[in-house]
Amino acid sequence: MTTLSTSIQYDQLIKSTKEANALGTTISLLHWDQEVMMPKKGIAFRSDQISLTSRLHHEMVTDIKINDLLNACEEDNDLVGDASSETAANIREIRHGYDRATKLPTKLVEEEAMLSSRGQSAWAEARKNNNFKDFQPWLEKIVNLLQRKAECYGWAEGGEPWDALAEDYEPGCTAASVSEVFTPLRNRLQTLLDEIMGSDTRPSNAFNEIALPIDQQQAFVRSIATQIGFDFDAGRLDESTHPFCSGTHCNDVRLTTRFHENNVNDAIGSTMHEVGHGIYEQGLLFDHLGTPMGTAVSLGIHESQSRMWENQVGRSEAFWKWSHPKMNEFFGDATASLSFDDVYGGANIVKPDFIRVEADEATYNMHIMIRFELERMMMKGELAVADLPDAWNARYQEYLGIDVPSDTKGCLQDIHWSMTSMGYFPTYTLGNLYCAQFFEKAMEEIPDMYEQFARGEFGALKTWLNENIHCHGRQYRAADLCERVTGKPLSADPLMRHLENKLKPLYGLT
Amino acid sequence: MTTLSTSIQYDQLIKSTKEANALGTTISLLHWDQEVMMPKKGIAFRSDQISLTSRLHHEMVTDIKINDLLNACEEDNDLVGDASSETAANIREIRHGYDRATKLPTKLVEEEAMLSSRGQSAWAEARKNNNFKDFQPWLEKIVNLLQRKAECYGWAEGGEPWDALAEDYEPGCTAASVSEVFTPLRNRLQTLLDEIMGSDTRPSNAFNEIALPIDQQQAFVRSIATQIGFDFDAGRLDESTHPFCSGTHCNDVRLTTRFHENNVNDAIGSTMHEVGHGIYEQGLLFDHLGTPMGTAVSLGIHESQSRMWENQVGRSEAFWKWSHPKMNEFFGDATASLSFDDVYGGANIVKPDFIRVEADEATYNMHIMIRFELERMMMKGELAVADLPDAWNARYQEYLGIDVPSDTKGCLQDIHWSMTSMGYFPTYTLGNLYCAQFFEKAMEEIPDMYEQFARGEFGALKTWLNENIHCHGRQYRAADLCERVTGKPLSADPLMRHLENKLKPLYGLT
Repeated sequence: MTTLSTSIQYDQLIKSTKEANALGTTISLLHWDQEVMMPKKGIAFRSDQISLTSRLHHEMVTDIKINDLLNACEEDNDLVGDASSETAANIREIRHGYDRATKLPTKLVEEEAMLSSRGQSAWAEARKNNNFKDFQPWLEKIVNLLQRKAECYGWAEGGEPWDALAEDYEPGCTAASVSEVFTPLRNRLQTLLDEIMGSDTRPSNAFNEIALPIDQQQAFVRSIATQIGFDFDAGRLDESTHPFCSGTHCNDVRLTTRFHENNVNDAIGSTMHEVGHGIYEQGLLFDHLGTPMGTAVSLGIHESQSRMWENQVGRSEAFWKWSHPKMNEFFGDATASLSFDDVYGGANIVKPDFIRVEADEATYNMHIMIRFELERMMMKGELAVADLPDAWNARYQEYLGIDVPSDTKGCLQDIHWSMTSMGYFPTYTLGNLYCAQFFEKAMEEIPDMYEQFARGEFGALKTWLNENIHCHGRQYRAADLCERVTGKPLSADPLMRHLENKLKPLYGLT
Repeated sequence: MTTLSTSIQYDQLIKSTKEANALGTTISLLHWDQEVMMPKKGIAFRSDQISLTSRLHHEMVTDIKINDLLNACEEDNDLVGDASSETAANIREIRHGYDRATKLPTKLVEEEAMLSSRGQSAWAEARKNNNFKDFQPWLEKIVNLLQRKAECYGWAEGGEPWDALAEDYEPGCTAASVSEVFTPLRNRLQTLLDEIMGSDTRPSNAFNEIALPIDQQQAFVRSIATQIGFDFDAGRLDESTHPFCSGTHCNDVRLTTRFHENNVNDAIGSTMHEVGHGIYEQGLLFDHLGTPMGTAVSLGIHESQSRMWENQVGRSEAFWKWSHPKMNEFFGDATASLSFDDVYGGANIVKPDFIRVEADEATYNMHIMIRFELERMMMKGELAVADLPDAWNARYQEYLGIDVPSDTKGCLQDIHWSMTSMGYFPTYTLGNLYCAQFFEKAMEEIPDMYEQFARGEFGALKTWLNENIHCHGRQYRAADLCERVTGKPLSADPLMRHLENKLKPLYGLT
């Protein structure tokens, strides 16, 4: 009798969760449409639509009935006894979301929404005018708000405020655990970068200088997206200024990419990156749609998928063996002068520079470490916002050996902090680390994977990812999933091996 | 004190109404996206999104608080004393919507949703197989349901069940009032058609036989849409199988059109038709967005706007004087052989045929009258569904002199009844009538309008429509608006004058 009743309550819990998701994905569509389709005068009312639907969504996920249902389910051993069962995972993650959603006072949520909106405007203006002082008061307000927000969430003993925020993006992640992986990574990256920058051998840059018609680039990247396994019957690929993947659900995944006439390399990288996110979303199970079991693990694991198709596949020698001869089909004589070495080398140029989103595989993580250290200090109150530009510039000199020429190309370059996102940046590097570790394991189990890529066959990798990562939804947290799939905790070794094995030969290093 | 308090309640009423509209327009976007953008596998979950948001919307518009606010407002003479004031109009129309939304038992609403969905499937299948018998039981269920629905709504004394349904599409419209206009219209149309069909002179059909590349057609109709005044910063024009205008709001109007290689005439007509709807939506006032004062009057008035740009403008001699020379710019030599007479005449061919959506201006209304008579009789119980095909075919013989070759080309051709829409069809003809009457008045006030069209100038007509019709929202009901704008009640005269003045010369009739 009790069991039956709890089982009914579990069904109700899942039904409510799915309903909230039907609204949540509708909000995603409003955002996607705004970026990709909406005519420009639509913006004012779109904010009303988003704020109304967001309020309704918040009411749904914080309904006290959810708590009652969770309380009942949590007492039923049949549902939660086996911690790795589907029911236990759903209950654990719905509880996690419910507790976080109800821990913040409405006033603080509204204050954050306001600060995020006005902060972004102030940031955009300050960035345009290269005037940090105009953004400073907003960032001060934001840091103050985020410190209060972290207090509301709380953090584990021995932890720190940053942990409370990171939990939104990477459940279970702490500043201490991030440091533990970032520190050895930084030292080894530094050594590799020094060697690369000291070498006289460098790949040709011809690939990055050639101008190609946008419509031909569109056709080319679309054919790559199809070939590597994106299902266009369950998704779209459009254009936007900043490429993104809007995972509305596994049967309707909206990607965007971007094109510049003289940078087909960027279009390929951006597309394969977003397709990687898209293949993850498409690999979630429809039966679990709208529940944690049908939801991606975390931003870090999501990024591991995008980076895998962008870097481990898209910048590999094997990939270019297949795609270099294809270029003629799409670009005709225009690319006839490019040799295999030009394209493979050109896709792997290493050059320390100021801008994170344009960074190569080797320097990218340095950008992240700098941001992580700075936001961690701001959250602890160890770095005043007024001192941010100096601290930023000093680190760019220290980590990458470059002088930041302006705040626009320095601490004002990223939107994240202005939209009150701290604790987010490290997920990019965690993604790179998970990616390399997963890929090494896949390579162990599919030893001829590179030969397959060279023949344009990407299905074995996709299936491996579907079976080992995608289909589990949130059954396992990121760290557990990593151990389960690779047999080891997250480490900097696979990423370093990947970079060294690829870049050393390209730069004539033994 | 009372006044202040009521004024606050009025503000709350408007706020709630705008919020419901923010959700309602979100539902419109879900539908638009489904037709125009969504990948095909997205359909299953899209139904979940639409049904959830529709339920939330229904809860918002039937909230008992709305009734309390309305009751308070309705007692305040400052708000409702002047029946044509903005506040009185808003209160009147919100009351109308609230009462209708709350008059139906939930069970009946759900039954209708189910019947509409399953009825459409059954209809599509029956139409494909030309098998009315398969659809008959569904239509019987639908008629039975609509009779019960009409009972719930009720109708004015001396009226009939059909009136109760028409109220959803054309508030204030009754079967008796429709008959009063349709009867003289039918007789005069019959006379005109007899004369046209009896004439030996007919326009060349060359325009309707020429094949032109789709991308050139797209550019051509887009340039026409821009020229006649559609604001692409506040709207989009895309493609779908069945053209439509999704009026999400005045600053974001989504139109679709369609293309066939050998029918640029259809693409022009469809586009101008939808642009007419779009110009109406864009002409509603942003300040009133989401309230009755910022909402189109009725389907009939909406159709008057689409038909005006499609027919009164787009099939006029003056329009073709401007656009015929433009064709070379878009189609090059391909259209060089088409004379002015070919295109102007070809856009105005009259030919009685079976299919409503392909009908010309002169025969179109006959199709509507047939449907009106039949649905009115079914609602009264005077025509059994089983007898529908015979009744349909007899009328096509009587009204248009043609033998319907199959039910697929007969009573199964339209989707409306299968989706439980009865009382809808007459709004098409009402639209044609309002259109002609409005246009005559505009011509009276802008005597050189045709000369303007011939120069590609359409702004004066658009401004006239903005000021006389669009900006009022629902301040006046359709019949009142007609009187207010034209000084006369709706009549068949203007439409007949329009048709006779244009078609008689084309068919060599004096």
